[in-house]
Amino acid sequence: MKDEKGILFILSGPSGVGKGTVRKELFEQATDLKYSISMTTRNKRPGETDGVDYFYKSREEFENLIEKKQLLEYAQYVNNYYGTPRAYVEETLAAGHDVFLEIEVQGALQVKDNFPEGVFIFLFPPSLEELKNRIVNRGTESSELVINRLKEARKEIEMMGAYDYVVVNDQVEHAVAKVQSIIQSEHLKRERIEKQYKKLLEDEMK
Amino acid sequence: MKDEKGILFILSGPSGVGKGTVRKELFEQATDLKYSISMTTRNKRPGETDGVDYFYKSREEFENLIEKKQLLEYAQYVNNYYGTPRAYVEETLAAGHDVFLEIEVQGALQVKDNFPEGVFIFLFPPSLEELKNRIVNRGTESSELVINRLKEARKEIEMMGAYDYVVVNDQVEHAVAKVQSIIQSEHLKRERIEKQYKKLLEDEMK
Repeated sequence: MKDEKGILFILSGPSGVGKGTVRKELFEQATDLKYSISMTTRNKRPGETDGVDYFYKSREEFENLIEKKQLLEYAQYVNNYYGTPRAYVEETLAAGHDVFLEIEVQGALQVKDNFPEGVFIFLFPPSLEELKNRIVNRGTESSELVINRLKEARKEIEMMGAYDYVVVNDQVEHAVAKVQSIIQSEHLKRERIEKQYKKLLEDEMK
Repeated sequence: MKDEKGILFILSGPSGVGKGTVRKELFEQATDLKYSISMTTRNKRPGETDGVDYFYKSREEFENLIEKKQLLEYAQYVNNYYGTPRAYVEETLAAGHDVFLEIEVQGALQVKDNFPEGVFIFLFPPSLEELKNRIVNRGTESSELVINRLKEARKEIEMMGAYDYVVVNDQVEHAVAKVQSIIQSEHLKRERIEKQYKKLLEDEMK
């Protein structure tokens, strides 16, 4: 239905599970999805555009937005803030577009607290063995760091309870098809669309 | 996941909306869905097989099952009972197969009372005008009956609140694709599959 609000979808899961790959492939197929644009306090780099790559804010502005609960989630890395501004998400949803957010588990749990009406999808590794291989094959990390990341991944998997759906990332194209079916069926949920259907009937019966 | 239980899907909606057409097309595509086999007290006709076309029961047996709440829904037509036996549905689900039930609104509401864990899909007409055309074009009914059927349809549409999903039957192939996405995404719901995933991890960590 045309006047339906968009839905915020959050794709998350342990590091190494392949969130970025699934998100990238999904966006090649689902051209009507909108990225959630992040907000940051780091400096704008050459070639970047405000409101496209990031929303750039001063530290003071960012902290002010944190205080006003205007971020669905945020974190600090290397002395800079990064976060998801509530206003952009809400405006995009109100305009009838779905918003897609790919994010680490800790961030997703913050979004869950601040925006529980989002649809939370947990990307699950085919096995812990496979997850380990993926982390090792990045090749950039020491064996100690790999062990730490695996421990972290196990903890993150225990956070699954906060999510609405679980999708195994055995093959990217399968995972993407499943995420697509979630997006489609969420739009068919009766509680989301009942009002519009009833209105449609009332208009016809006038 | 292999040891997952099946899900009971109920497709319903006002008469004339095209439930049968959608169900037929769906079964040509989704070969792993099982029909819900009805139970009846009418006599077996030549060429019919017990447990395939219907489960045939005596009036006494049927009424005994009603009393024991062993029917998810039932109704009487022309002095015979017709209903959906709970046992067949539960055994099929336990064997890991999805069961699909296409049924009138009154029957669906009975199933909802007796088996609330089913997934209820309401098939919606593109418009009341279109629904009227479809009923008229059957050509078998007097104009008085058409008016009564339309009144009935409006009442049935008001029952939408009992359903989980609403699918517009504007084009059969669109409606079928939507039902397919509901079937797939219901299997991805975290609360259905969390236990198996946790078990999988525990087994790996032994």
